[in-house]
Amino acid sequence: MGLDRNLQRPVRLTLKRQSASYYIDGILKQDRVILSQAITLIESTRKEDYQLAQEVIEGCLPHTGNSTRIGITGVPGVGKSTFIEAFGKELTSQGNKVAVLAIDPTSQSSRGSILGDKTRMNELATDANAFIRPSASGNTLGGVAQKTQESLLLCEAAGYNYIIIETVGVGQSETEVKNLTDFFLLLMIAGAGDELQGIKRGIMEMADAILINKAEGDILPLAKQAQRAYKNAIHLFPPKDSDWIVPVELCSALNKTGIKEVISIIESYKNKTTINGYFEENRNKQQIHWFTKKLNELILQDFYNESNNQDRIEKLKQAILSKQISPFDAANKAIDR
Amino acid sequence: MGLDRNLQRPVRLTLKRQSASYYIDGILKQDRVILSQAITLIESTRKEDYQLAQEVIEGCLPHTGNSTRIGITGVPGVGKSTFIEAFGKELTSQGNKVAVLAIDPTSQSSRGSILGDKTRMNELATDANAFIRPSASGNTLGGVAQKTQESLLLCEAAGYNYIIIETVGVGQSETEVKNLTDFFLLLMIAGAGDELQGIKRGIMEMADAILINKAEGDILPLAKQAQRAYKNAIHLFPPKDSDWIVPVELCSALNKTGIKEVISIIESYKNKTTINGYFEENRNKQQIHWFTKKLNELILQDFYNESNNQDRIEKLKQAILSKQISPFDAANKAIDR
Repeated sequence: MGLDRNLQRPVRLTLKRQSASYYIDGILKQDRVILSQAITLIESTRKEDYQLAQEVIEGCLPHTGNSTRIGITGVPGVGKSTFIEAFGKELTSQGNKVAVLAIDPTSQSSRGSILGDKTRMNELATDANAFIRPSASGNTLGGVAQKTQESLLLCEAAGYNYIIIETVGVGQSETEVKNLTDFFLLLMIAGAGDELQGIKRGIMEMADAILINKAEGDILPLAKQAQRAYKNAIHLFPPKDSDWIVPVELCSALNKTGIKEVISIIESYKNKTTINGYFEENRNKQQIHWFTKKLNELILQDFYNESNNQDRIEKLKQAILSKQISPFDAANKAIDR
Repeated sequence: MGLDRNLQRPVRLTLKRQSASYYIDGILKQDRVILSQAITLIESTRKEDYQLAQEVIEGCLPHTGNSTRIGITGVPGVGKSTFIEAFGKELTSQGNKVAVLAIDPTSQSSRGSILGDKTRMNELATDANAFIRPSASGNTLGGVAQKTQESLLLCEAAGYNYIIIETVGVGQSETEVKNLTDFFLLLMIAGAGDELQGIKRGIMEMADAILINKAEGDILPLAKQAQRAYKNAIHLFPPKDSDWIVPVELCSALNKTGIKEVISIIESYKNKTTINGYFEENRNKQQIHWFTKKLNELILQDFYNESNNQDRIEKLKQAILSKQISPFDAANKAIDR
């Protein structure tokens, strides 16, 4: 196989593809190495990998849907990794299996600053009940979130019952992650105004809980002050469809205080929204969203895979570069309008 | 017409559509009200507006390409509006016409925090040679950038020779704006570490100039210190395809110092990259990028406009909601795979 069984990730250069059942069986047997290989397969942009990836997803589908899906965001510096490490360890210590998927929308040009730092989440990374995986970015048709969604499903099939999707910053990816998750957690810190933290109102409105990290030592009074401020701010937002009142809590990922409480909050949220029907309603909406995304991906693929279209597009690109046609007219010509 | 000629923007409720030539002629006559109406038309998600919008763009195309296209980014709190106001006023005082288009990727849920504050860019907003327009966000097939690109072209046809595209934050939209512009300007402030400013390495790598705003009064020494730090950081980045050495400069938008210098920097950039061919090469790349985006939009449109497909999709959505089929299988079925 050319794979070192001790590595969490396969060595890219020696990666050979296996049959779909190899991946499916491995995932269902909760083999982390095979899970990791399967995610690499899904993220592959090689055309010949696509069909196989689809088969793997399809085989895993019946075993999905049973996890609590949590989105976590906050600008760099807020302590996301330390928090996820503490939170993840608490979850595994309670007998859960935790998968962490990280999305970095800006890595298109610089590639993977997330998890690039090898010291991040040391404890969690070596926990047998945890699985950490940075999400490949890139320009694929379906976009980052599509691949993350599919990775999430594989993790569920591999028995992870808490899936954490981490995003950095304040961009579009938060909206997409909201579409993949049941619960959306916003990490903040005291001291820096939210202006400076770059957190937009839109992101705050999405949050199901606001957690002020680094509430420790000298900063504690400031953290409490920030807590009051955010509580007031929350009141000004329109009520949520889930009827959930967004809690604003303190924690210290460093000192591991306030971490268990986050698990309780998420449990309360699940209970409340399961009873009032929102949980199911939200997942249904996400299913339709996923369907549309997937369908768009397939429609475009069908078009670009046709060799007639490929030739035509190549010629039109040349015509654009030699200024014989505008990109606009060329696009219309490419689809025979 | 039901339009108040004194308003920069048409009243939505009373908006009636005109012929394509009405919009095209108005734009070429540099009529700001009609330009604004045409952008509203382009941003419209009403199906019946699409064809008309395409005709308007097509009619304007021969009159585009002659502006300097500038992307400006920086996290909230960095003073983007004040800077753009000072920069824009300087440009118009030198006889230029300036259009400002603003993209807010997070406004999907909260709608338009950009320019919502009525006190923003007061002076520029009342300048006869300036045009300010927030970009509609939303879930359209082509995405935010597609509409912004088309708005940019209309502004060029209306005689604006400097187009500024403003983005907020650190998300995906910066990559897209990079694809629309000739020059990418990153605003920073001293005092807050770049970690806290939420600026990712990827964004810094994209910048053609870094400008440290609020370099004034007591903060000046700090600003100079930040300048040195960023200059050092810049050296660690790989050299740019444009062969351009990224300058790190100070300015105070408030005191209007360092503003003229930005114009000179952009002029130097244009000169250098015109001579070494990068300017043209970059625009060519953008043309191909635009072609692909537009083509994808049209391919999807063709599919969804077919009534057979609409019926099938509706039925499949129902089947998803009643758990008879997975979104994944439904997508494959929808395209007859």
